[in-house]
Amino acid sequence: MIINIPENSDFSIHNIPFGIFSTVDRTPRAGIAIGDHILDLAAVAELDVFDFNTAVLEKDTLNDFIALGKSITKKVRVDIQHWLKDDDSVLAGKPELFVPQSKANMHMPVAIGDYTDFYSSIEHATNVGKMFRDPENALLPNWKHIPVGYHGRASSIVVSGESIHRPKGQVLPKDASSPVFQASARLDFELEMGFITGKSTEVGESIATNDAEDYIFGMVLLNDWSARDIQKWEYVPLGPFLAKNFASHISPWVVTLEAFEPFRVSGPQQEPKVLPYLEYEGQKNYDIQLKVGITPEGSDEKTVCHSNFKYMYWNMVQQLAHHTINGCNINVGDLYGSGTISGKDENSYGSMLELAWMGTKPIKMNDGTERKFINDGDTVTMRGYSEKDGVRVGFGEVSAKILPAK
Amino acid sequence: MIINIPENSDFSIHNIPFGIFSTVDRTPRAGIAIGDHILDLAAVAELDVFDFNTAVLEKDTLNDFIALGKSITKKVRVDIQHWLKDDDSVLAGKPELFVPQSKANMHMPVAIGDYTDFYSSIEHATNVGKMFRDPENALLPNWKHIPVGYHGRASSIVVSGESIHRPKGQVLPKDASSPVFQASARLDFELEMGFITGKSTEVGESIATNDAEDYIFGMVLLNDWSARDIQKWEYVPLGPFLAKNFASHISPWVVTLEAFEPFRVSGPQQEPKVLPYLEYEGQKNYDIQLKVGITPEGSDEKTVCHSNFKYMYWNMVQQLAHHTINGCNINVGDLYGSGTISGKDENSYGSMLELAWMGTKPIKMNDGTERKFINDGDTVTMRGYSEKDGVRVGFGEVSAKILPAK
Repeated sequence: MIINIPENSDFSIHNIPFGIFSTVDRTPRAGIAIGDHILDLAAVAELDVFDFNTAVLEKDTLNDFIALGKSITKKVRVDIQHWLKDDDSVLAGKPELFVPQSKANMHMPVAIGDYTDFYSSIEHATNVGKMFRDPENALLPNWKHIPVGYHGRASSIVVSGESIHRPKGQVLPKDASSPVFQASARLDFELEMGFITGKSTEVGESIATNDAEDYIFGMVLLNDWSARDIQKWEYVPLGPFLAKNFASHISPWVVTLEAFEPFRVSGPQQEPKVLPYLEYEGQKNYDIQLKVGITPEGSDEKTVCHSNFKYMYWNMVQQLAHHTINGCNINVGDLYGSGTISGKDENSYGSMLELAWMGTKPIKMNDGTERKFINDGDTVTMRGYSEKDGVRVGFGEVSAKILPAK
Repeated sequence: MIINIPENSDFSIHNIPFGIFSTVDRTPRAGIAIGDHILDLAAVAELDVFDFNTAVLEKDTLNDFIALGKSITKKVRVDIQHWLKDDDSVLAGKPELFVPQSKANMHMPVAIGDYTDFYSSIEHATNVGKMFRDPENALLPNWKHIPVGYHGRASSIVVSGESIHRPKGQVLPKDASSPVFQASARLDFELEMGFITGKSTEVGESIATNDAEDYIFGMVLLNDWSARDIQKWEYVPLGPFLAKNFASHISPWVVTLEAFEPFRVSGPQQEPKVLPYLEYEGQKNYDIQLKVGITPEGSDEKTVCHSNFKYMYWNMVQQLAHHTINGCNINVGDLYGSGTISGKDENSYGSMLELAWMGTKPIKMNDGTERKFINDGDTVTMRGYSEKDGVRVGFGEVSAKILPAK
């Protein structure tokens, strides 16, 4: 192996995720995470080893690289794997190609054109329904027929590490008839996965479930921050708006669909039967372990949630088929969130709203303080990886600190 | 005057709207509509009369031009007005600078990063509430406190003239418990205005109502197509999605806020009093007459709606202040729809849903056929202009034909 890869690294030889990084001496460019290092793809390109226009590797987003298509991006991944394993390869004896991750700044991996957020975990939708609607009829009538989704804000999606301020907005106090303006008192995270499309369609085109994987370049971790008190007052009838669009964070490394190939599993049985355009063949869920930790200022991290991407009721190919069945077009770099990923167990719920059950079951931090929602100074960190037969593939983390309202 | 401008032209010397056009001999570039012609700004730039980097005028969107800022874009507009009026100006004796509109193709004027749609007409919100909720309490409790809005799809916004196919999707038949998949049987238009921002903010920044006009470059006409049957089944709890994102049309010419300056009027009294961050000073509504016509295949156009932008309850500066109060950032080229613009009179309603009152009052076309919603082969055309003291400023039209479902 050309470079040392620590055991249990998310960025094993089996992964080869793509991202955009910069260093003190060079502007943002494409790289691959390997162990604790980044392989500088723009520098590799200077060795004249790629047979495509490598200007795309010097851009500050991956969009143009991804747009080359899977025939090229898959080959880059496989070539890099071979070269890393071969001590006599083109990468040998060139330590300058490998930048320690500790010396790099990570940037948004893609320019996101449109951002769609689904609501595809049955456990999450059921929990929310129990809390806010009817415990006996927690799921709405359309939920098992439609991978329910809505449009989110693309501009305010930022990369892991950028601190954000607690949002302010309108909130309706209990028993009041008029709202007040204040900092959100119920700031929450939502544990999600996001996928990024790598191929565009025209207005009027649809994508069949059987073709959908060709359109999915890769996945990221997504923290879809939510101000529950703002959401409650604003969301009827047109859905969440300011409760969500102040910021969402994604992980800097995009893990390709190919890297998760060994971790395919079957999804839950869908009953009632879905309409034909949502039927699919094969295993379309993925066994990806997910964790959320909260680190209060000056304390250490407390893990509050263990979940798994395999719990999803609606899978990515169904989401994409549904999204485009009316002719809605998609672009390279568009982001699609899974919705909060909750499991059956109480410690697998993917938001504080569910974990602390609307504030009725506060969660104790390591410093003894309790949390119903997220406090100023808290850092929320999400991690995700798959592991089987000695193969580990992961995202690293998406992490961000909440600063007081401005 | 350098060029003949027909009387009653929307594109008078007082207007000077910006757009992107192409001709058989040259690729998309910036232009200004004047009478029946387009002044080719890229060609004007070759006369070396502008003191900014004119490469922005050769782009296929206006974004980089708009991003130069109002100090430059306002000056370009005023300079062009002077040159057009002065028979000895730099534009004199150069007919090649003026392209007949009939010989040009119009393109999307801007690359839209994010698209937000508001719901700011009190008459429209009341009509919808009466039909679908409680006639006695038609407005929801938050409506008079919040300029309610939601995120729409940016990718499927297309320019006037592009025909679109009727969307297909899930619909719940009357008295059924399971949905069916079919072409929408309730395809509707929504008469809206859209504004385009010309200045960006960072995540965490807010825009005060008093500053908001600095961020608004100009306005377009917007037809926010809606499939009412798909909408009804999908929209609870996260809002409209596939019912809207198959396509929206905008007019090709962006009329600057400055051009509408003579047409400012006061908006309706807002009662109850809005929260301080939504208070504003001065006249922030605009008297812009709006019309919608339907042209069945092989027939002539029937005007079905006369409305006015001055009816808006929430104005643009309030919309922008609300949108950013939580720190949501905006970009140059973002689009913000007003929501359907209805007035008090039955013939001023801005959608077929309201005009034909849920199908109970069909509207007769000139060929004797009736419409509850929009039929295949129908062309829907929206027009908008302001007129006072001999000054006329308008958009031309946004027009599109509905083709049968694919």
